[in-house]
Amino acid sequence: MGGDGPGVTERTRLRRMREKGSHRREDLDAVLAAGWLCHLGVTVDGVPMVVPTAYGVEGDRLYVHGSVASRSLVRAPGSTVCVTVTHVDGLVLARSVFEHGVNYRCAMVYGVPEVVTDPEEKLRGLRALTEQSSPGQWEYVRKPSRKELAATALLALDLTEASVKTRSGPPDDGDSEDAELGLWAGVLPVVTAFGTPVPDPALPAELAAAVPGHIAERAGRRVDGGEG
Amino acid sequence: MGGDGPGVTERTRLRRMREKGSHRREDLDAVLAAGWLCHLGVTVDGVPMVVPTAYGVEGDRLYVHGSVASRSLVRAPGSTVCVTVTHVDGLVLARSVFEHGVNYRCAMVYGVPEVVTDPEEKLRGLRALTEQSSPGQWEYVRKPSRKELAATALLALDLTEASVKTRSGPPDDGDSEDAELGLWAGVLPVVTAFGTPVPDPALPAELAAAVPGHIAERAGRRVDGGEG
Repeated sequence: MGGDGPGVTERTRLRRMREKGSHRREDLDAVLAAGWLCHLGVTVDGVPMVVPTAYGVEGDRLYVHGSVASRSLVRAPGSTVCVTVTHVDGLVLARSVFEHGVNYRCAMVYGVPEVVTDPEEKLRGLRALTEQSSPGQWEYVRKPSRKELAATALLALDLTEASVKTRSGPPDDGDSEDAELGLWAGVLPVVTAFGTPVPDPALPAELAAAVPGHIAERAGRRVDGGEG
Repeated sequence: MGGDGPGVTERTRLRRMREKGSHRREDLDAVLAAGWLCHLGVTVDGVPMVVPTAYGVEGDRLYVHGSVASRSLVRAPGSTVCVTVTHVDGLVLARSVFEHGVNYRCAMVYGVPEVVTDPEEKLRGLRALTEQSSPGQWEYVRKPSRKELAATALLALDLTEASVKTRSGPPDDGDSEDAELGLWAGVLPVVTAFGTPVPDPALPAELAAAVPGHIAERAGRRVDGGEG
């Protein structure tokens, strides 16, 4: 691989490029902006509980619905949670079982969540949550009523303690002894995309066919906003 | 929606059909079989840590690499972990912000992981792990050497304490007052599929073009094995 340096050094350099960690805010923002579903880890009675839930980012805060964490919040207010956002980009198919892996982008955010009570922040947070997964819907659909707003628990997490890990590129054994085995190796990409909108069967036919532009334009597009 | 019964009852029945929980083993098996990446929740120094990692199922056990959980295992042997497997099927776009949601299939498995030391089970577990994400690779590539096997920590979790939650179908507000708003509503499907295999640049050209059948046939297919 390459040839612009001694084998081992080159390999080390490439490996470092393929799997990397970061604490840079812009790397965190990129991973968070590319998704809308996180896995929220909370401790309930001393046991970790991992729940998938939608999130939204607004400024320096990440918002999730409080309902999923309510058991934890009630029993252990002020306890730390972990929010993990993962994008899978491909299966790394190496020449040996040992070198198999995954190309991914992952962000982990730790913090003590705050229950949002300020009505204005609650609206901003819910808007961020809605727009993260479904841009355009906040303006298009009916916004929360006072009653609905009161019935919604919203948690905010500061983006102060976070890390990003990614892996990209081919397997690491391209310059190992296993390369002599003559086996195919590479990456099988994994792509998550939106399909064709499916109208609610309860809609009258005319309305069912009139998919709004902000929804229709997403069909076939990658969920993470990437190309290809 | 329907009309084969009083409005409220019908609605209740449909809602129940759309979001459901299950403790049936066959429902658990279906969700686990449709994926290969989980989010593993472990408690480290009293704080939940949620890490994405590959898993494999063999019989009544789920296997994950021990490395990701090693910090936890060393500090708190015998502690309970949570393994969550989530498949996102679509965004539920309702007529109000409040009714927005996600169609998904999710399995949660709790248990105290066991470090696998028996060499035969270790091989079986690693095989399950490899074949879950990459069927055919175990036979195609070089299997673990004695040294590699010793260097790999493998955790096993019994599938005894587990639950499944799913949501499917259209939004729940098709027969609510909001249906009068004349807004489009429905589901924007989310589909995760394999792309075209990308050969390792380190491969000689001839070999690069010779993608093995068990890999080539996955291009364009859904990761969860579903149709469409």
